[in-house]
Amino acid sequence: LDYSPELGGIIYKVASLARKVGGISFAGGYPDPELFDADGLAAAYNAVFQDGFRASLQYGDREGYRRLRERIATLSSTPERAVTYDEVIVANGGQQGIATATAVLARPGDWVYTEAPTFPTALHVFHQAGLQGAAIACDGDGMIPEVLEAALKRQRARLVYVMPSYSNPAGALWTLERRLRVLELAVEYDFHLIEDDPYGLLWFDAPPPPTLLSLAARVPGARERLIHVSSFSKTIAPGLRTGWMIPPAKLREAFVHVKLGTDIHSALPSQYAIDRYFGAGGFDAHLPVIRATYGERAAAMGAAIRAHLGERLEYVAPKGGMFFWCRMRSGGDARALMAAAEREKVFFVPGVAFYPGNADAATFRMSFATTPVDGIVEGMRRLARVVPGG
Amino acid sequence: LDYSPELGGIIYKVASLARKVGGISFAGGYPDPELFDADGLAAAYNAVFQDGFRASLQYGDREGYRRLRERIATLSSTPERAVTYDEVIVANGGQQGIATATAVLARPGDWVYTEAPTFPTALHVFHQAGLQGAAIACDGDGMIPEVLEAALKRQRARLVYVMPSYSNPAGALWTLERRLRVLELAVEYDFHLIEDDPYGLLWFDAPPPPTLLSLAARVPGARERLIHVSSFSKTIAPGLRTGWMIPPAKLREAFVHVKLGTDIHSALPSQYAIDRYFGAGGFDAHLPVIRATYGERAAAMGAAIRAHLGERLEYVAPKGGMFFWCRMRSGGDARALMAAAEREKVFFVPGVAFYPGNADAATFRMSFATTPVDGIVEGMRRLARVVPGG
Repeated sequence: LDYSPELGGIIYKVASLARKVGGISFAGGYPDPELFDADGLAAAYNAVFQDGFRASLQYGDREGYRRLRERIATLSSTPERAVTYDEVIVANGGQQGIATATAVLARPGDWVYTEAPTFPTALHVFHQAGLQGAAIACDGDGMIPEVLEAALKRQRARLVYVMPSYSNPAGALWTLERRLRVLELAVEYDFHLIEDDPYGLLWFDAPPPPTLLSLAARVPGARERLIHVSSFSKTIAPGLRTGWMIPPAKLREAFVHVKLGTDIHSALPSQYAIDRYFGAGGFDAHLPVIRATYGERAAAMGAAIRAHLGERLEYVAPKGGMFFWCRMRSGGDARALMAAAEREKVFFVPGVAFYPGNADAATFRMSFATTPVDGIVEGMRRLARVVPGG
Repeated sequence: LDYSPELGGIIYKVASLARKVGGISFAGGYPDPELFDADGLAAAYNAVFQDGFRASLQYGDREGYRRLRERIATLSSTPERAVTYDEVIVANGGQQGIATATAVLARPGDWVYTEAPTFPTALHVFHQAGLQGAAIACDGDGMIPEVLEAALKRQRARLVYVMPSYSNPAGALWTLERRLRVLELAVEYDFHLIEDDPYGLLWFDAPPPPTLLSLAARVPGARERLIHVSSFSKTIAPGLRTGWMIPPAKLREAFVHVKLGTDIHSALPSQYAIDRYFGAGGFDAHLPVIRATYGERAAAMGAAIRAHLGERLEYVAPKGGMFFWCRMRSGGDARALMAAAEREKVFFVPGVAFYPGNADAATFRMSFATTPVDGIVEGMRRLARVVPGG
């Protein structure tokens, strides 16, 4: 696993440079704080202060607050796969789901495959756990099953980590067929799949295909090899550090044991508040606002790239989530491009931060989530002054 | 390490039995929820909703909220050792401090020594990390340094885990001399000390000797081998899951890297609220109420034991914290005693749950924290009907 904290740290370096220099930043992986429903959440906390606060201050169930687990189960259910609350373990964001799955399932020296590119803080976990690994080629339809299978034939894996809907950083959306095929491969080659789904609800025009969690019902043996993790970080607020993990039934106790050792259980007042927020209809009312805003910004970024950079960049316009993933047709290194872009006061993250080895250095990630449309258009104009080729 | 989750699970089994059966329970390791300053905390949250809420909803520093780290630094400082905010990393309770220290410092097969008896959820972490270990004999003055040194001569250790002030379960208070000697041994035998200090502020009549963190200033080389962990679980509320870890400077980055992989950072609204709670004087005003209440209950339990059970139990009356640790002079197994006590509807935790091997089965733990004085007196009367000997 060719990862180092310094490599992952590029993201933080660029983000803090952007804060220092000012200008227009597409570097963050953050949701737009202006889109936090602060009033709705404060009202939800106040409902807890009226009823349930003292209980939320005490130790609670290791699996999390029962009523929130029921909300999460409903949110995760589809017509073909009803999730029940007892499958759900509340975690401190999806990150803790990745870390817990790794602690339960992998031992030093085990292999993990990820998408190319992939989420660096997942690589951080795999690196700390002493895993070996490699990234599997992806295209606009998601991970390429034939490439994964060829890799598995050379070297079996213990884990395969994927983000099938609007991934960070690629913004990729896996097709239904790819999803089903990778579930079949999990059974055939006996690995565990971690499905990380923080962006699945952030679709713009149409929902994504069903989650692997849902589709596993169609592939015998797949459910017991699938760990679904997600969070409210992108749909409510990341500062709450509230997410969840849905492991197979036979691993449930092992997950709870790791969770107990890690921090006993997740903080409760926020779990109570999120439940009350759902109960007041806040979540369902506010999610379309986030979708519409991000959708508008994604469209603006797509149009501005086409207008100013279309000849010089390869990209797939995302259908949800927060990111454009671009590649300079001229090749070259996006770190050099970043240095040039800094003079124009426009910021993004060089792609090398997102690979566990064999990085395509010509790639970079831009988030449209935190920049209003005017800024996006101006940012693309500035970028057009420094991207080579064309 | 002769630990199993089932053994640690005895505590939860007895606690849920007590809830089911009703009666008088000294089984919980919980603070009294009636002592949570719910109004003060709700006011603190509301202060956050007025100022800072949106920032608290966003991703933040991995080390935690700067202003809370400053509060914790002040709380942890003594005249001979000023702690600065940059030494402090906010964690999800002290438990995450133990887990993080273990992840940073220990590898499978490494040795850990603990007090006999010790905190089972720490054993849970050491067990999951694949450590070997043993418990070191303690007396009323804390861990016996000569026994620790003899053990170290036979088998060096990577970690020594201790709770020098009002430990769970023994309620023990280490003397100043013992503290200094164990710090010296850490340097001499090159191990890392985890000082777990969740109860240090819960003294009744006089504060405990300085923490190992403070005393390390007197022992050259000790600070770089000491990880101090603590939390607000017993002084504010455990449901907030807010604690901290103070590692040596040279391990700070490694701790932050593990924290990042585990859950990026701890939830922020609660960190902001605790800061505002301090700012409003709530913490300083309320802590004496908790001390006085627990002190009164401890005195009542001590008097009732002397009156009804004095001949039949060995114990050291605690000077702080939440626990009486007792041993039947007749020997025997406290699990059998528990079965008899259940018929009297009085509950406690058999001591076997608190040892990493070589358990003294005649011991048991009683918490006086959640039972008002009348209930404590009645509970000791009931217990007197079933404790053998005398």
